[in-house]
Amino acid sequence: MAKLWQKTTNVDKLVENFTVGRDRELDRQMAAFDVLGSLAHTRMLESIGLMDAADLMLVQQELKALYLEIEHDNFEIEPDVEDVHSQVEMLLTRRIGEAGKKIHSGRSRNDQVLVDLKLFFRHQLQQVVTETDTLFRQLIQLSEEHKEVLLPGYTHLQVAMPSSFGLWFGAYAEGLADDLEMVLAAWKITNKNPLGSAAGYGSSFPLNRTMTTELLGFESLNHNVVYAQMGRGKTERIIAQALSSIAATLAKMAMDQCLYLSQNFAFVSYPENLTTGSSIMPHKKNPDVWEIMRGKCNRLQALPNDVALMTTNLPSGYHRELQLLKELLFPAFTDLIDCLQMATFMLQNISVNKNILDDPKYTYLFSVEEVNKAVLNGTPFRDAYKQIGLDIEAGNFNPEKTVSHTHEGSIGNLQNEQITNAMDKIIQSFDFKKVEDAISWLVK
Amino acid sequence: MAKLWQKTTNVDKLVENFTVGRDRELDRQMAAFDVLGSLAHTRMLESIGLMDAADLMLVQQELKALYLEIEHDNFEIEPDVEDVHSQVEMLLTRRIGEAGKKIHSGRSRNDQVLVDLKLFFRHQLQQVVTETDTLFRQLIQLSEEHKEVLLPGYTHLQVAMPSSFGLWFGAYAEGLADDLEMVLAAWKITNKNPLGSAAGYGSSFPLNRTMTTELLGFESLNHNVVYAQMGRGKTERIIAQALSSIAATLAKMAMDQCLYLSQNFAFVSYPENLTTGSSIMPHKKNPDVWEIMRGKCNRLQALPNDVALMTTNLPSGYHRELQLLKELLFPAFTDLIDCLQMATFMLQNISVNKNILDDPKYTYLFSVEEVNKAVLNGTPFRDAYKQIGLDIEAGNFNPEKTVSHTHEGSIGNLQNEQITNAMDKIIQSFDFKKVEDAISWLVK
Amino acid sequence: MAKLWQKTTNVDKLVENFTVGRDRELDRQMAAFDVLGSLAHTRMLESIGLMDAADLMLVQQELKALYLEIEHDNFEIEPDVEDVHSQVEMLLTRRIGEAGKKIHSGRSRNDQVLVDLKLFFRHQLQQVVTETDTLFRQLIQLSEEHKEVLLPGYTHLQVAMPSSFGLWFGAYAEGLADDLEMVLAAWKITNKNPLGSAAGYGSSFPLNRTMTTELLGFESLNHNVVYAQMGRGKTERIIAQALSSIAATLAKMAMDQCLYLSQNFAFVSYPENLTTGSSIMPHKKNPDVWEIMRGKCNRLQALPNDVALMTTNLPSGYHRELQLLKELLFPAFTDLIDCLQMATFMLQNISVNKNILDDPKYTYLFSVEEVNKAVLNGTPFRDAYKQIGLDIEAGNFNPEKTVSHTHEGSIGNLQNEQITNAMDKIIQSFDFKKVEDAISWLVK
Amino acid sequence: MAKLWQKTTNVDKLVENFTVGRDRELDRQMAAFDVLGSLAHTRMLESIGLMDAADLMLVQQELKALYLEIEHDNFEIEPDVEDVHSQVEMLLTRRIGEAGKKIHSGRSRNDQVLVDLKLFFRHQLQQVVTETDTLFRQLIQLSEEHKEVLLPGYTHLQVAMPSSFGLWFGAYAEGLADDLEMVLAAWKITNKNPLGSAAGYGSSFPLNRTMTTELLGFESLNHNVVYAQMGRGKTERIIAQALSSIAATLAKMAMDQCLYLSQNFAFVSYPENLTTGSSIMPHKKNPDVWEIMRGKCNRLQALPNDVALMTTNLPSGYHRELQLLKELLFPAFTDLIDCLQMATFMLQNISVNKNILDDPKYTYLFSVEEVNKAVLNGTPFRDAYKQIGLDIEAGNFNPEKTVSHTHEGSIGNLQNEQITNAMDKIIQSFDFKKVEDAISWLVK
Repeated sequence: MAKLWQKTTNVDKLVENFTVGRDRELDRQMAAFDVLGSLAHTRMLESIGLMDAADLMLVQQELKALYLEIEHDNFEIEPDVEDVHSQVEMLLTRRIGEAGKKIHSGRSRNDQVLVDLKLFFRHQLQQVVTETDTLFRQLIQLSEEHKEVLLPGYTHLQVAMPSSFGLWFGAYAEGLADDLEMVLAAWKITNKNPLGSAAGYGSSFPLNRTMTTELLGFESLNHNVVYAQMGRGKTERIIAQALSSIAATLAKMAMDQCLYLSQNFAFVSYPENLTTGSSIMPHKKNPDVWEIMRGKCNRLQALPNDVALMTTNLPSGYHRELQLLKELLFPAFTDLIDCLQMATFMLQNISVNKNILDDPKYTYLFSVEEVNKAVLNGTPFRDAYKQIGLDIEAGNFNPEKTVSHTHEGSIGNLQNEQITNAMDKIIQSFDFKKVEDAISWLVK
Repeated sequence: MAKLWQKTTNVDKLVENFTVGRDRELDRQMAAFDVLGSLAHTRMLESIGLMDAADLMLVQQELKALYLEIEHDNFEIEPDVEDVHSQVEMLLTRRIGEAGKKIHSGRSRNDQVLVDLKLFFRHQLQQVVTETDTLFRQLIQLSEEHKEVLLPGYTHLQVAMPSSFGLWFGAYAEGLADDLEMVLAAWKITNKNPLGSAAGYGSSFPLNRTMTTELLGFESLNHNVVYAQMGRGKTERIIAQALSSIAATLAKMAMDQCLYLSQNFAFVSYPENLTTGSSIMPHKKNPDVWEIMRGKCNRLQALPNDVALMTTNLPSGYHRELQLLKELLFPAFTDLIDCLQMATFMLQNISVNKNILDDPKYTYLFSVEEVNKAVLNGTPFRDAYKQIGLDIEAGNFNPEKTVSHTHEGSIGNLQNEQITNAMDKIIQSFDFKKVEDAISWLVK
Repeated sequence: MAKLWQKTTNVDKLVENFTVGRDRELDRQMAAFDVLGSLAHTRMLESIGLMDAADLMLVQQELKALYLEIEHDNFEIEPDVEDVHSQVEMLLTRRIGEAGKKIHSGRSRNDQVLVDLKLFFRHQLQQVVTETDTLFRQLIQLSEEHKEVLLPGYTHLQVAMPSSFGLWFGAYAEGLADDLEMVLAAWKITNKNPLGSAAGYGSSFPLNRTMTTELLGFESLNHNVVYAQMGRGKTERIIAQALSSIAATLAKMAMDQCLYLSQNFAFVSYPENLTTGSSIMPHKKNPDVWEIMRGKCNRLQALPNDVALMTTNLPSGYHRELQLLKELLFPAFTDLIDCLQMATFMLQNISVNKNILDDPKYTYLFSVEEVNKAVLNGTPFRDAYKQIGLDIEAGNFNPEKTVSHTHEGSIGNLQNEQITNAMDKIIQSFDFKKVEDAISWLVK
Repeated sequence: MAKLWQKTTNVDKLVENFTVGRDRELDRQMAAFDVLGSLAHTRMLESIGLMDAADLMLVQQELKALYLEIEHDNFEIEPDVEDVHSQVEMLLTRRIGEAGKKIHSGRSRNDQVLVDLKLFFRHQLQQVVTETDTLFRQLIQLSEEHKEVLLPGYTHLQVAMPSSFGLWFGAYAEGLADDLEMVLAAWKITNKNPLGSAAGYGSSFPLNRTMTTELLGFESLNHNVVYAQMGRGKTERIIAQALSSIAATLAKMAMDQCLYLSQNFAFVSYPENLTTGSSIMPHKKNPDVWEIMRGKCNRLQALPNDVALMTTNLPSGYHRELQLLKELLFPAFTDLIDCLQMATFMLQNISVNKNILDDPKYTYLFSVEEVNKAVLNGTPFRDAYKQIGLDIEAGNFNPEKTVSHTHEGSIGNLQNEQITNAMDKIIQSFDFKKVEDAISWLVK
């Protein structure tokens, strides 16, 4: 089977290996989306008279069968076939003859790659949102469950003010909600149809791009065909930035976990089978999961820069190395989804130390509390401040180790409900339903 | 004048110089926003009984006077004053006595910095949106003006298909609209009130954070106080990512301009006084503006990574180096706004070469066009393809150098109206009016 | 087969999958080096009385056999074995019983990983140097071959001064020689023995680290054991920086190639089978190899930052995510070596256009030449300059299109011999011979 | 005063402000080096007959006077003068007439910038090496002074094995020695003469580049003139990588310091005036210096990537944005030198806690020690291991809290002398003497 664009002269084998790289392996993940693109494109072709009704019926039937095969993992890119688009076209032609070749009419390979990537990224972003939501609920639940348990709050890594597990877990939950604003921006940029841009300069065929936009459940289209092509690299960079935002939140949480599991903090613990250790050092509970998560998430934080370095200063128009971006983005989704799932799993098993503040090194946490209490009881600030200072100096500082914070977002008023409402609202902005309905209709 | 948090023992001068760095210079830019924060905070203090009505009146009057002074550039941070917050408090105390000191009640310096930064960033983001919009309109206008002028379209930097100046200018316009999705995400994350989080662990005072949220025109608040603090560094990174998205679009446009100004392309030109050259090489029109823009924008593309490297693996809680992020972000806004303005200015002066395709090296651009025409006239694709191939080989290929593309987003149907509608819609999502109204009310 | 450090309680499967990741696959590449480490370590153990002579003989014999098996690709890490160290120990124990277990005495797994990585990196760096040298010779040869062929020299992408293929090829050659300075620094940092640092804090066994240093052909040792461990992550970052230096040179060359292959330049060409194209656009010769090379090399340029982001702000001591650096570094070597080989291969097939300067757009290249000639013939500079300027203005500028540059490194005096001498000198600094001799002796 | 390359038509003011940017301010730092370049260049001009002996004498005398003025800070770039090269030429012409203009003969501005940058960078690199050496000696001294004081060693942030302050301080010292290998590579690449490359394509004047190489004390020259220009951006990136290596070492030390100063570790302390705090929280000793250092050093770690993003994918030849690299590199030197000095200063004032291991949470540190002791006394490993495990389980584990490590680089055998020898050797490789001698001769 020849490559679609093959010249008479064979491209040197060495060249092919170097340029094709891991395309076959990565393209496998786009197979279902390639079929979806063809299902929509062929309906459109028929509507503008470039495919007849009989061919359309044949093609649609066979593409739907193929979609099921892919879903059931009965699909592979054969060794001498260059990419997923060639494989789909070849299978179709093998099964239904000449009609199979027509799915490529009015399209270039660039066009197919662009729409496949958008559909694939859209699907992956939805998984990311779902897993982020699950982790969010887990954090809110822990925040509520442990809202009475106090924790030292640090500034400059110095013991500073009272905090709580309620605040700590809740903060990461609220962080994830904000991160989804970035994912939403990436979603909106992704969820626009590039199909019909051909090699990036449009086509003389009277394509109906509005129709494929609707069929594929896109919110809108990349109008300008030069921009549709320019979106390659840009979409990847913006998605990478969105993923990096969640990754940054997870990495910080992982760092906190590693510290809090250290014997020097001992704020949290895990069942023995979720840490690793040494039987000769029974105290050792290495937080390998959190360390690996920190590492994977920091690598994800580097991803947008990797994309930027590979795409900056390229003039407009397609360049072959844009294909290499798949090697960066595809595993990034898998890694982030793994990390989100592992974080949820670990947190389902976390135990918190309820007596942390009994340790005398945390007594001074309450110095500001005591000053504020005196102020609220009528003592002028400067006097209250001086009195507590003198008590501390004289070793007479014995604060009550309780806090009564009441304002919005403080220890006694976590506002987890408001945070959850904000999360619900942003998730609704994604309109996954519209996408799912469109896909269901296409393949049914 | 002492620093607010000064110990009896003087901090070693060397230490102070090293740690304070460029704070004074950068803080100057936050002065107006620091006053706004205090205007809102003191109203709230009065409402919860922590400031009496007489003090409030005094303080409000003086803060408003100070706001005007800052607007009229009558403000500076004195040499022995550490930061803008100390300067404002000191001026107030100098003018109205003890009441001036009360503006700090129920707040920590961290708290002040956090809200000042959010207000400053919000203001800068609005400027960025405004300048982006201006450039957008300029591009759309050029796209319409030159929509009939053809240009070679490249893939792999090889002459490929016909393009047009309409497509080229319009593509960058549409790109800017998408970039604003990222700016909108950054805006939404920025436009939440952190005030009341104290040192990042809340306060025992019965603060009313909802009230300051409304007074300052924030859309919502950073609920959880630990998250409010965690937003430092994160807000900066996300803003940097948003700016980098616009920067990437400008950098690519700048690269195109540098190529197209080269004698090897000669697609566009500028008046002599907007390029630099050499009187001995009269052909030389160095595109210095576009080169500097490309450089500045590529530096902006590196910015999110700079922020990530400075903040990753820091556990939760405040760390002093977060202050250094001002040195990264503040000039970035200035640079991007300069670049947007210069891009608009240059494009107002661009001339396009109307006869590019007369050069025979662009003849083959039309080979695909000719095949498609034959197909649309009923010739089977394979036959049409073969015929044109043979013509080319025989040197008989003399295409009409016109294109009749009609589908959405193609040369003959640019959809600039739809692109403009999309831009208008996203700009409306920012709700700048609400912010402006709140600020006006606070300072009137 | 248990992991070496396994606890009674099984580590949860989910945790294991997440933390082990691609270790097995990557460790396979370190197998030969793990055996080398054990060959040296056991000789040392015997010398300090921690292994008896009989055991040593058994172990050495079997390790050498295993080394050959690995060389002949007869080695794999079994599915339930965690890493290469466990696999080697297990095979040994299976074959020679209890003696096999003793290879681990006085070492921790950390220790083994550290030395294996150093040996592996050292080996890979040698390949990089070899392939860089080959490409260097190819470039020098082309520089000599085409030293008479002129080329326009650009500044600001504007046609500026005469250049030549001799200069162009030679510049990249000299660039590679400088890049090897960075590789040499990386080599020197890598080529120090960490073995004996145990878990990063040394051991109470009377190890002889000087002996293993000599046996393994290291130049010196990482003396301080805490530093030996601290070298993890640092060695990777520095190697990545060295590789990125070569990659930057290749990426720039690839960009030049893509431009020069464009119809707008047409300075070079390649046989049809080394480019890709379209039979309908016979002029298209897509430079896919150079584009992919540019992409791969730009990814390599991002590598040091990836490593920095994964390691910065980690306090001293081992952290589990350091293992993930293998996923970054191992493929980077393969990619760079591939790129170096492909660059050499392509250049073996390049054709240069000998008549570039016949095109009238390059005439002004010679304006400065003409001024300089006049000056050398005694005309004052200002007068010469004015005269040529007037000639140009009047359309009377008809320069001889020849150049007679004679100074060091100019068109007429390329100094390729001096550049080659510099390259030879730096390659000699690596002292690969010492390393090869040590390894040969160990395995013979 | 006109710019050297000014056209009749004035370059639009807006354009000039945008493109010149901070050049004047940054160029000030290159003034002395610009004079050095001219001192060497004019001697060479005279030797090839392009300047007569009388002019040379005048020019040399005035340049030397100017050099002294710059040294005494009596030099500024006037507001309407574009850059340092114009300022020097103008001053000279003002003082000695027409002869002053001749210093530009046979040079382009590019040429001047290139050589000035190399001389400036070379000078800065020497400062970096000097300050690194000072910090190194301080660390070695502390390592020796506290070699008996034990410290817990961590892996995975878990208490693991005994370490010592001797090891901890010594590790960072050895790290700095390795970092200088990178600085040496950067030095070697920098210390080559680009002068004579004109605009990057050489000159038709019979320049003697070997002579200027010797006069300026360069080790060698950038032979190929195209490569001399290509070194711009590359030199900056490689220097940035070298600086980032030292920065990474300092950042890690700063992170350790921040942790060890936390109440949860309390391993080290500083005089009150070197930390900041709060009189109401007397325990607080905020490590602001180390935090700012961590931040500055992490920004330095991002620097090579900033340079890479600004230079990648630029084809060969000069581009105007290369000038912007000064804005990145110049402050980087200042920041790194500041950090090195502050680190030395802080360490001069550090106190170490001598009784850390009295805390029972560190008891298990000694479990491996006890097993090893038993093994060295003849108990088989498995038995020793089992016995200690049972003791621990039964609460009978009461180890002696001493260690007797003897091997190279361990607690009892720090090898600080060998580490110091390695440092001395690498510093000698720089041959600063040759450079200093050349400069002294030029200006005397």
